[in-house]
Amino acid sequence: MKHILDIASLSTDEINEILNLAFKLKEILHRPIPKVPTLRGKLIVNLFYEPSTRTRFSFERAAKALSADTLSLSAKGTSIEKGETFLDTVKNLRALGADLFVIRHPCSGTPHFIAKHIDVPVINAGDGIHAHPTQALLDLITVKEKLGTLSGLKIAIIGDIKHSRVAHSDILAFQKMGSKVSVSGPAQLLPDIKEQKYFEIIPGGFEVCYEVVSAIKDADVIIALRIQKERHGTPIIPSYLEYHQFFGLTLETLKSAKRNAILMHPGPINWGIELAPEFEKYPFQVILDQVENGVAIRMALLLKLLMGDKEV
Amino acid sequence: MKHILDIASLSTDEINEILNLAFKLKEILHRPIPKVPTLRGKLIVNLFYEPSTRTRFSFERAAKALSADTLSLSAKGTSIEKGETFLDTVKNLRALGADLFVIRHPCSGTPHFIAKHIDVPVINAGDGIHAHPTQALLDLITVKEKLGTLSGLKIAIIGDIKHSRVAHSDILAFQKMGSKVSVSGPAQLLPDIKEQKYFEIIPGGFEVCYEVVSAIKDADVIIALRIQKERHGTPIIPSYLEYHQFFGLTLETLKSAKRNAILMHPGPINWGIELAPEFEKYPFQVILDQVENGVAIRMALLLKLLMGDKEV
Amino acid sequence: MKHILDIASLSTDEINEILNLAFKLKEILHRPIPKVPTLRGKLIVNLFYEPSTRTRFSFERAAKALSADTLSLSAKGTSIEKGETFLDTVKNLRALGADLFVIRHPCSGTPHFIAKHIDVPVINAGDGIHAHPTQALLDLITVKEKLGTLSGLKIAIIGDIKHSRVAHSDILAFQKMGSKVSVSGPAQLLPDIKEQKYFEIIPGGFEVCYEVVSAIKDADVIIALRIQKERHGTPIIPSYLEYHQFFGLTLETLKSAKRNAILMHPGPINWGIELAPEFEKYPFQVILDQVENGVAIRMALLLKLLMGDKEV
Repeated sequence: MKHILDIASLSTDEINEILNLAFKLKEILHRPIPKVPTLRGKLIVNLFYEPSTRTRFSFERAAKALSADTLSLSAKGTSIEKGETFLDTVKNLRALGADLFVIRHPCSGTPHFIAKHIDVPVINAGDGIHAHPTQALLDLITVKEKLGTLSGLKIAIIGDIKHSRVAHSDILAFQKMGSKVSVSGPAQLLPDIKEQKYFEIIPGGFEVCYEVVSAIKDADVIIALRIQKERHGTPIIPSYLEYHQFFGLTLETLKSAKRNAILMHPGPINWGIELAPEFEKYPFQVILDQVENGVAIRMALLLKLLMGDKEV
Repeated sequence: MKHILDIASLSTDEINEILNLAFKLKEILHRPIPKVPTLRGKLIVNLFYEPSTRTRFSFERAAKALSADTLSLSAKGTSIEKGETFLDTVKNLRALGADLFVIRHPCSGTPHFIAKHIDVPVINAGDGIHAHPTQALLDLITVKEKLGTLSGLKIAIIGDIKHSRVAHSDILAFQKMGSKVSVSGPAQLLPDIKEQKYFEIIPGGFEVCYEVVSAIKDADVIIALRIQKERHGTPIIPSYLEYHQFFGLTLETLKSAKRNAILMHPGPINWGIELAPEFEKYPFQVILDQVENGVAIRMALLLKLLMGDKEV
Repeated sequence: MKHILDIASLSTDEINEILNLAFKLKEILHRPIPKVPTLRGKLIVNLFYEPSTRTRFSFERAAKALSADTLSLSAKGTSIEKGETFLDTVKNLRALGADLFVIRHPCSGTPHFIAKHIDVPVINAGDGIHAHPTQALLDLITVKEKLGTLSGLKIAIIGDIKHSRVAHSDILAFQKMGSKVSVSGPAQLLPDIKEQKYFEIIPGGFEVCYEVVSAIKDADVIIALRIQKERHGTPIIPSYLEYHQFFGLTLETLKSAKRNAILMHPGPINWGIELAPEFEKYPFQVILDQVENGVAIRMALLLKLLMGDKEV
């Protein structure tokens, strides 16, 4: 494990190792002083070229819990404004002492490109519409924590599947671990199974449903995706109200799922669009658990990539 | 003491406790290594939705002196830009491990609203035109340090009383501690005593003066307020030159105050508008003492809220 | 050594002391935990009023390696936006506990002005077109590291000499250490030796060449300057393509230099303008060595200014 670029490059064993390590590390976060000295002196550089609260702070928090130093850079106020290439910026930061890069970028493939040209680990924190592997890993650990297993489940993902890097990584991750993924959403936002290139399909592991209720029927896990209003150059949804009416989740819609099915969302939530406000108090909504588990996952990844197989 | 939201919710005893603790903690700032490990591993999240140097860095400095970690967030470059509600942002940061929130927000009441919905302490670092309690506390400690007491004094506050959260908190704070507050400024910027809702009046503790000299006469402390040019959507002062002529303080105006009356200002100063440049060298000007004392006050608040009555 | 404002105020002995200390400190950066506790509890404030990656992060990295705390401020989101003077901002930060200021500012002379009015050290991290002394020091150490000496060399600097603070500081620094500096570039971007006020000329130590090849002939070191596209209000170069044709460096141009002449650049690079892309793999290109050495230089300066002659 040299980089974390996407779910496709991780074996099932590697995923299990990461999840097990994260389960162990989560305990640190609940200590009175939630900090261990393992990565003292390591420099983690966060390069976020898209707005982010959850993911960026999650990595910063994970670094702090392991006593690593962090430097954070956005495109504003740096030499990117002076016309420097992204690779030159990264090489300079490496010369300044960076031990690991966390990269979020609007162009699909950027972290892969950087990983090829630099001699330290790269973690993809979301690249365009391609992949968001750390989100998929935190989704896996949350399901495992709540339901005790990752195999034999039915996972329903609802929303803009076509443009969602979260969906692309989740679809592959849950299939890999032995579950079945059903997706639904507006027809124009569903992937063309033959043409799409963002995720692999394991025979019998994936289906596209034109009706939300078919995807949700008997599901153990429902993942509502965010309508990414800020991404759509030309609007692809005629009306958010209409979206909510047909594809927004309500307690009513969830009745066809398994009893006690858990509800997940990668955040930030548009209440009243993809999720009815009544879900805020739904007992099997685990959205903030996802956030907390994200810190443990990122701690595990920082440790694996920086310490390898050394006892951690 | 669960939160610090405004001066109204603090008893006189609590204020005295905070001031005494801050006096003790100030010594730490003058050590060769100005740092104690008391809050090691605690995560303080600064949420500043208005520009700030003094207050934000004061909290960061206070956190560093106590070895706490900090994360700072402004509205730019975060999920607020993606349309997330402020409360959802706060809940996510809590799930990421925040132990205390410091909030500055242009809407009056925001910190109170957040405090009601979150299980960790909230400190109001300035909300709209409502309150700025940590500023009032640092003003109290500066007066006590310089004059030895907080009771029986006359405090003059000059400027835009109506729209100043600093004035609103100071007016109540100094009355509570047993002093009398006289305010003056342009007629349209004075509070309507019966209609205003930002501060309580203790009988005999407060007066509005239409002449600056009446407010300043025999005062022990003069607080000049900043003309907040950046806040006035429609201009409410016809001319800054004219303002200075009638309401700007000069050494001449101060002659009617007590001998050696101290001059304070919350900063940043518009020299030549609310204060004549000659004050820069006025021997009883204590504006930078206020800034230094602010760090001690914030250290005291962080300790009280995070460690409670444990020995600190 | 109270401040580092420009090369002119440093003696040859002081420069040698800084270089020797930096050589010693560089070793720390290669330790498994690249950190010493020497500056624990010191607060270094970075005030960057122009975009910067390399220089700002270099100072942050240097501070971290010495265990100092840092606060970083740009003009956005602070009281500068509220109209506070720069000196007032600095005085407030001093009252908040700043032990040293690192200042980059578009106006030449700003760090000197601040240094006159504040009681802690100031380091100039680039002021207008005047000086960039820490860059010159890192250029010196890189040459000394690669060529073993700083005297008797020929240093060629190519580009916009007239508006480059890097050139101004380098020209003086290399002359001071006993080398000869030859500059070349478009005629309108060359300094008028009699009128210019940015660097001193040591007799026989400096020449202006109208032909790039004359400057480069037999040079030991070639420094290509960045075309600062973001600085030119009115364009002073008619065409970047044409610039490259006449003044951009290629492997061909370097043939007249000494064999194994080293190539330097302060970054960020405009590939294809001042440097042909083929230089990326040129074996004597030491651009990233400059970046790494910059951290060691800044560590040395922080130590000298904050610890003086105490054993470090």
